[in-house]
Amino acid sequence: MPTSREDVKGLVPLNILVSALLTDMYQITMSYAYWKAGRHNENAVFDLFFRKCPFKGQFAIFAGLSEVIALMNSFTFSPSDIAYLRTVLPHCEEAFFDWLGQLDCRNVRLYALEEGSLCFPRIPLIRVEGPLAVAQLLETPLLNLINYPSLIATNAARLRLAAGADKTLLEFGLRRAQGPDGALSASRYSYIGGFNGTSNVLAGKLIGVDIRGTHAHAFVQSYTSFEQIKDPTLDGKDFVAIVKGYRDRPVCGKGSGSSNDGELAAFTAYAQAFPDGFVALVDTYDTLQSGVPNFLCVALALDDLGHRALGCRLDSGDLSYLSQEVRKMTTEAAKTFNRPFLATTNIVASNDINEESLHYLADQGHAIDTFGIGTNLVTCQAQPALGCVYKLVSIEGVPRIKLSQTTSKITIPGRKAVYRLLGADRVPILDIMLKDGEEPPQPGVPILARHPFVATKRARVTPTQVVRLQEMVWDGQAGGATSDMPTIHEVRATVAKGLKEIRQDTLQRLNPTPYKVSVSEGLHDFLHSLWEKEAPIRELS
Amino acid sequence: MPTSREDVKGLVPLNILVSALLTDMYQITMSYAYWKAGRHNENAVFDLFFRKCPFKGQFAIFAGLSEVIALMNSFTFSPSDIAYLRTVLPHCEEAFFDWLGQLDCRNVRLYALEEGSLCFPRIPLIRVEGPLAVAQLLETPLLNLINYPSLIATNAARLRLAAGADKTLLEFGLRRAQGPDGALSASRYSYIGGFNGTSNVLAGKLIGVDIRGTHAHAFVQSYTSFEQIKDPTLDGKDFVAIVKGYRDRPVCGKGSGSSNDGELAAFTAYAQAFPDGFVALVDTYDTLQSGVPNFLCVALALDDLGHRALGCRLDSGDLSYLSQEVRKMTTEAAKTFNRPFLATTNIVASNDINEESLHYLADQGHAIDTFGIGTNLVTCQAQPALGCVYKLVSIEGVPRIKLSQTTSKITIPGRKAVYRLLGADRVPILDIMLKDGEEPPQPGVPILARHPFVATKRARVTPTQVVRLQEMVWDGQAGGATSDMPTIHEVRATVAKGLKEIRQDTLQRLNPTPYKVSVSEGLHDFLHSLWEKEAPIRELS
Repeated sequence: MPTSREDVKGLVPLNILVSALLTDMYQITMSYAYWKAGRHNENAVFDLFFRKCPFKGQFAIFAGLSEVIALMNSFTFSPSDIAYLRTVLPHCEEAFFDWLGQLDCRNVRLYALEEGSLCFPRIPLIRVEGPLAVAQLLETPLLNLINYPSLIATNAARLRLAAGADKTLLEFGLRRAQGPDGALSASRYSYIGGFNGTSNVLAGKLIGVDIRGTHAHAFVQSYTSFEQIKDPTLDGKDFVAIVKGYRDRPVCGKGSGSSNDGELAAFTAYAQAFPDGFVALVDTYDTLQSGVPNFLCVALALDDLGHRALGCRLDSGDLSYLSQEVRKMTTEAAKTFNRPFLATTNIVASNDINEESLHYLADQGHAIDTFGIGTNLVTCQAQPALGCVYKLVSIEGVPRIKLSQTTSKITIPGRKAVYRLLGADRVPILDIMLKDGEEPPQPGVPILARHPFVATKRARVTPTQVVRLQEMVWDGQAGGATSDMPTIHEVRATVAKGLKEIRQDTLQRLNPTPYKVSVSEGLHDFLHSLWEKEAPIRELS
Repeated sequence: MPTSREDVKGLVPLNILVSALLTDMYQITMSYAYWKAGRHNENAVFDLFFRKCPFKGQFAIFAGLSEVIALMNSFTFSPSDIAYLRTVLPHCEEAFFDWLGQLDCRNVRLYALEEGSLCFPRIPLIRVEGPLAVAQLLETPLLNLINYPSLIATNAARLRLAAGADKTLLEFGLRRAQGPDGALSASRYSYIGGFNGTSNVLAGKLIGVDIRGTHAHAFVQSYTSFEQIKDPTLDGKDFVAIVKGYRDRPVCGKGSGSSNDGELAAFTAYAQAFPDGFVALVDTYDTLQSGVPNFLCVALALDDLGHRALGCRLDSGDLSYLSQEVRKMTTEAAKTFNRPFLATTNIVASNDINEESLHYLADQGHAIDTFGIGTNLVTCQAQPALGCVYKLVSIEGVPRIKLSQTTSKITIPGRKAVYRLLGADRVPILDIMLKDGEEPPQPGVPILARHPFVATKRARVTPTQVVRLQEMVWDGQAGGATSDMPTIHEVRATVAKGLKEIRQDTLQRLNPTPYKVSVSEGLHDFLHSLWEKEAPIRELS
């Protein structure tokens, strides 16, 4: 029987299913065709990029790189993989399987943006250089490992922007994700995007994200009366009696409504187990008539014994109205009983929260301190796929182009260098791609930045600072990863820094200003000459 | 370094990360509170169900059960899990961790619908009976393992209904899924829902779904001329010369447009590798001017050597128009060259296909034989989460209810028996839930079926046949799983049978007829008495 893996912290995939065989069949058939033609070792360059920012926004966050490196470390077809492939490709030559069985990434080089960087359409997030067949085989697993992490990091960052910097954001999506990976990725990359923690215990253990949790409705339902509490004590005192003593006081318990005694018993029992971690889910019966008054009884009783209740949680209803009513009640109780801490107890809210509802709540006013976000975060409901693509841009040193009747789908050919030009105060002005071998942009020297496809869109930029965006992150010939992977906390800091430095109108929700992605004059002209050469002249009659 | 797991066919989770620790933190804290109160072994009953069918439809498909059984077999906290939990719950008593460390599902019983069954709102898909703390801990992993499989099986079934029974449907979503699990689940459960195969090689190996694949644009781009083909032969003949011989003939090659020679070389090379598996991706340069004419050259040349080309694949543009033009061209070539097989070569289409576009294509007319569906299938874009819930319905034999200001969120209390009443010809009339202990419905005997919440919605039904929907699938005391799990092919047959037997207006895309889910008179009255008892009387002033 499997037990949790103990060795997952290293540079191997967290999920053992991440392997060379996690690929589309056409990668295998293409590899055979390349091998059969003796072309499998030709030197190829592929770019991994997206064409459009997600969520109708103008930015995205690059994430998933360390899992790509882990795949590179372990990229191999096992003997049983080979045995399986033989059964589905019975007519392929035996020597092909021998070759496939000894394949690894020793001749591959990867160049990539820094994980956590802000990124924009058409800029290669990763450039893969290596033998044609191996670089081709990497397409599917790389896309699988980059698409969802980048999407959810971006989604989390947008939720953080919508909620404001002072709120606590928790990821609650385990039950709605596409299996354990989807859930673990959600925990990891929402943290990177700006969340504070997750409910997912496995993510806590394996990834090191803070975990949080209280109790569910079932816990409350399981209590019908105080008779179910066999031991009424806490710290040697009769805690049940103390709680009951508050039941008929103003604001609290029956004093404020027709509170449910089973619910009060449940809160009491939970507080006995977690006297310093008491958060009450208050909407099992009636939030304002029962849940909050009962919460106050237990919070006051805990305080009598020197324990501080943390807060209460809303999971249904009008969160704007309810949170403000809860704050009124806790404030009133704080005054009535002279317990100032009650006025600042944490109000946690969940229930179908998304980017829109966060903006709506901010507009309406609310008193929520912490948001738990599940379904909308992990499914990225507003756009559930990022759509990164992986395109051949050069083979044996010869740049290649992929044409399309849709101009935005035309690829920028060749091996390219990518720079971010910064103005004063490190504010990015635009990204620019140069032809391999072109002189890099220099601070203080004007450079013409052109739109790749629209001739009239040009800008002359004099950068204060020039940042090269892609660094080599894997060099198979030199032992693999070129440096240690950053921790999730470091990647999170990179995201936060990027979001702070960019022009804020790029991030705004309504009509965000597009960030410019441009090509040099040299690359522009080269692209258009190749385009003209490859495009067929249509025969019309 | 990890290699693919060889032992995954058995009843252990496919993904080693599926474990007891794959849970929400509040399950652990609740367990501690139950344990601390000495209630952890109380006998609890939970129902797992959804409240609303996905995709604005009136049916869903129940899937994921065999993975739940695999979890039950391996449900345990490893020593390192316990060590981790100690660090996050430092104030919990040591004896709790001792107890947690020896936990398993030996005292749990599961009752479930048959995997692949059609299912409807509020009917418990799974009923869990067992010690309160264990049954509670199962909530999150069970929801994680049922939600997405059921959603994607339903999505696949809807796509099958939209495409029609005679089309081939292939799952192409690996690169857009939430990691390897999302992708493997998509392959497995789309097959169950009615798809024919997948591009995912790992799914082929581990799950046994048929895999398919041809080549990508990169393969075409990698060829610029015939000079790249070092060995021009196939079956000892000069295949390149034969292909070139067709290049200036009518319909084919340059005879039909300004075809790209690099593309023709790529097709030729691919056909040399797969002479009996030749499918050409025809949209790299220009589908009708280049791709299809080049496909025809190679298909004719292959035929000269006794090999049969399979077809061509469209991945962009107006698929209705293009597929019909392709069919015209292959039909014309079939006549011109007297090769009838060309008129029926397979036309494969992909590119952002979803349920709507399938209906649109059917309305417009098309000549597509095979659809490859990726993003929309695996992300379930139209509704990316199913929303199953897991609710306590009984504890120590006492039925419990969960109230809500939203009536549809009120739970049906107690342990229930569930029956499907069939009319003549095995057509299901409705599902009905009975109170535990009530006499089962009998064929030929009228029974009153009531809407759980709307008093005026009642029907008297005289069933021809009565099917008990839930069977015991796991009995920890009797060794675990009560029978062998069905194969994916058997589950797929169950889905197909269910879709065939149900009233077809339940399945239709626009304004589908709701399938009735009802309660017996006895359960109705019991539900309402408990509701009235638990609901607070609001204090208004």
